[in-house]
Amino acid sequence: MTDISPVLDHLDRSIGESLERLFGLLAIPSISTDPAFAAEVRRAADWLAEDLRSIGFEASVRDTTGHPMVVAHHPGEGPHVLFYGHYDVQPVDPLPLWENDPFRPEIKEIAPGRKVITGRGASDDKGQLMTFIEACRAYKAVHGKLPCRISILLEGEEESGSSSLKPFLEENASELKADFALVCDTSMWDAETPAICVGLRGLVGEEVTVKAANRDLHSGSYGGAAANPIRILAKVLADLHDENGRVTIPGFYEGVEETPPEVLKSWEALGRSAEMLLGPIGLAHPAGEKGRSVLELVWARPTAEVNGIHGGYTGEGFKTVIPAEASAKVSFRLVHKQDPDKIRDAFRAFVRERIPADCSVEFAPHGGSPAIQLSYDSPLVKTAQAALSQEWPKPAVTTAMGGSIPVVGDFQKLLGMESLLVGFGLADDRIHSPNEKYELSSFHKGQRSWARILAALADEGR
Amino acid sequence: MTDISPVLDHLDRSIGESLERLFGLLAIPSISTDPAFAAEVRRAADWLAEDLRSIGFEASVRDTTGHPMVVAHHPGEGPHVLFYGHYDVQPVDPLPLWENDPFRPEIKEIAPGRKVITGRGASDDKGQLMTFIEACRAYKAVHGKLPCRISILLEGEEESGSSSLKPFLEENASELKADFALVCDTSMWDAETPAICVGLRGLVGEEVTVKAANRDLHSGSYGGAAANPIRILAKVLADLHDENGRVTIPGFYEGVEETPPEVLKSWEALGRSAEMLLGPIGLAHPAGEKGRSVLELVWARPTAEVNGIHGGYTGEGFKTVIPAEASAKVSFRLVHKQDPDKIRDAFRAFVRERIPADCSVEFAPHGGSPAIQLSYDSPLVKTAQAALSQEWPKPAVTTAMGGSIPVVGDFQKLLGMESLLVGFGLADDRIHSPNEKYELSSFHKGQRSWARILAALADEGR
Repeated sequence: MTDISPVLDHLDRSIGESLERLFGLLAIPSISTDPAFAAEVRRAADWLAEDLRSIGFEASVRDTTGHPMVVAHHPGEGPHVLFYGHYDVQPVDPLPLWENDPFRPEIKEIAPGRKVITGRGASDDKGQLMTFIEACRAYKAVHGKLPCRISILLEGEEESGSSSLKPFLEENASELKADFALVCDTSMWDAETPAICVGLRGLVGEEVTVKAANRDLHSGSYGGAAANPIRILAKVLADLHDENGRVTIPGFYEGVEETPPEVLKSWEALGRSAEMLLGPIGLAHPAGEKGRSVLELVWARPTAEVNGIHGGYTGEGFKTVIPAEASAKVSFRLVHKQDPDKIRDAFRAFVRERIPADCSVEFAPHGGSPAIQLSYDSPLVKTAQAALSQEWPKPAVTTAMGGSIPVVGDFQKLLGMESLLVGFGLADDRIHSPNEKYELSSFHKGQRSWARILAALADEGR
Repeated sequence: MTDISPVLDHLDRSIGESLERLFGLLAIPSISTDPAFAAEVRRAADWLAEDLRSIGFEASVRDTTGHPMVVAHHPGEGPHVLFYGHYDVQPVDPLPLWENDPFRPEIKEIAPGRKVITGRGASDDKGQLMTFIEACRAYKAVHGKLPCRISILLEGEEESGSSSLKPFLEENASELKADFALVCDTSMWDAETPAICVGLRGLVGEEVTVKAANRDLHSGSYGGAAANPIRILAKVLADLHDENGRVTIPGFYEGVEETPPEVLKSWEALGRSAEMLLGPIGLAHPAGEKGRSVLELVWARPTAEVNGIHGGYTGEGFKTVIPAEASAKVSFRLVHKQDPDKIRDAFRAFVRERIPADCSVEFAPHGGSPAIQLSYDSPLVKTAQAALSQEWPKPAVTTAMGGSIPVVGDFQKLLGMESLLVGFGLADDRIHSPNEKYELSSFHKGQRSWARILAALADEGR
């Protein structure tokens, strides 16, 4: 067994220095979406490569067609892990809403005994990625080596579309492929309960355009005789769900698995009621499949949603037009083994069946990615869960996410590598908003958590 | 019996002079919607008042909050009729598409023996209103008097919303009230068949906004748990019709009458197939209530149509949002005795019933007017039908219109006066478009038609 007590002690003693380093990184305005900050993005990459070298990593800043990637390697025994984080940040506007300069981080005591680190990127994702680097640094300082063989990939385009990520992974697949990835860009369940995200829903997007007459018509002259594409589209969209909230597309639930009863029970134990999830957004009633909890609906059930619809006259006042066409953006969240291509085909067939003889329909695809689902009782998850549970007041829970983290799918697809998603953000960190913060406890206990996880992985891998 | 042969002869002989007068009026760019042409609109009003005075009318140009009205009176025996037309015209853009200057009218022979008058307003409505004035002029020239007591109301805002019309009718009700109105702003059935329009559908407009969450939501985080207002709206709109195309709102068909079999037969005899009506707009299949002809659907059946819909993200690409709200503009075409207020209330109740507990709906009314329906066998219609049938190659038919002509409703509501709708436009007159034209035969035989109708009305009224 790896003795981690001296590593944890070292992390406790050096919290001041680790904060100084984080502040140095947070002070760099690495806003990736704004070309005016391109040099700052590169400066952050250089800063990280230099810091990793100081720990003993072989680190380099690699050019892409966009912002650079930081790649670092450190030898070690046991499993080979690839850590992923991103060093770019969101823009800061509206600036007047910030209580402090977003790039002059501070420590603030926001309640007795509760301190937070303020600044853009404090939580998303600079504070999070530094928890891992600090854990590595402490290991080296105490033991002179790392508990595993560790590679690190830090992206500079996560907040601006990750356009270079896929090509970079493809071109450097053999260098980056590890036994599994550690991704630190998610949240805890609450301030006392760490979480491992084991499921991410997939996504299929489709734009549907229904066309009828060859031009817009006057509803007086033609109403009652001419097909109205808005009505046809509305009927198609209304048909997508039955009265129990289930999606009616034939074959839609192929590959959807029932969540194991013990997992459902653990989610129930989290005590997140429909009121708690929906209350803050002004709702009260779960709107999906009947008889399932809100967490199951969002984490483990597929959906069909209309994200946008447009047709006819939508300006001020009224225009009695029967439009020539109407369109909708429809997306499906996928779970488990649902196949994006099959879902897309089934949806298109479903729509075509409902288009009257003298109308037509056109489709435009918008992305398609399968769900990511780790087994709830995989050894990787169990190991991390046990390690996290030693650090925090409450045992670690396994959760899922209703959305997707594209890099996880890319790791799976391009590098054949599963990811372990562990992060220490909190729901109120205001990422992407003014006054972003990261709990000091997240930063400190996050470092300790990674130290424990790395040790446990090393022990498992032996 | 009034002897109209000399009047008709006079009209034939003076066609050159009447064309010169029409060209004078057409040369005035009385575009009512563009404030830059306000003085020209007034010039057209002055021109008409002066011309009417030359015939012996007591004519005046009356100021309104918008463009002026021309009001003229001429004493006479028999029934008192109010003639309505409008002297303002549509804008001319896109100007490059005009083959001739829109305000330099010309006579063109577009096929052997077929001459047309070109220019903005030639058909809509200057050419049409002058057919009536020329008929009056000829009567005076031949008989020294008019066959009826005639008032004339010429509007200058018909193409720009008629905002002054209602207040003007209200303020001058006793002056303008006649036994019935003659409205010359409609079309013939075809070049050989005159038409009397006996039905105009009414209109109720409603904007519906469905609201769910208090902000736009990420469809990953909330999809499956949160209500989607686009889906709710789509369901409401899809529910509006049953599989036979009938509107499902309770009470919707209250006041709708079945069209008499002999009228349906006369419409069938017009030979306008679904293919003929729908083919030019790229359609083939009547989309309304099953088992009814396209003419019946458009002329004598009520409708529910969606004229516009909007919700969520509708720009380029995709945004996986569940929007906070979605809205649609819905309108109903009414027939016979359907009550606009009842329809509006019934629709709102229908929608409210379908809004889930934690969502809300808001309505904004947009106009409401009942249908106008003359009895198919009213003496007024029969008289005009007989008179027109003497003039044209084929007997006059009674038709209806799917749209509405607001002034007809205003005459009915504010002055308690029915209207006889007779016009000589053709479907291909390109009103509101470049290269507007009016058939020379419409202008000439239109004058003769009014002479016959006035004589017949005088004979009936005796």
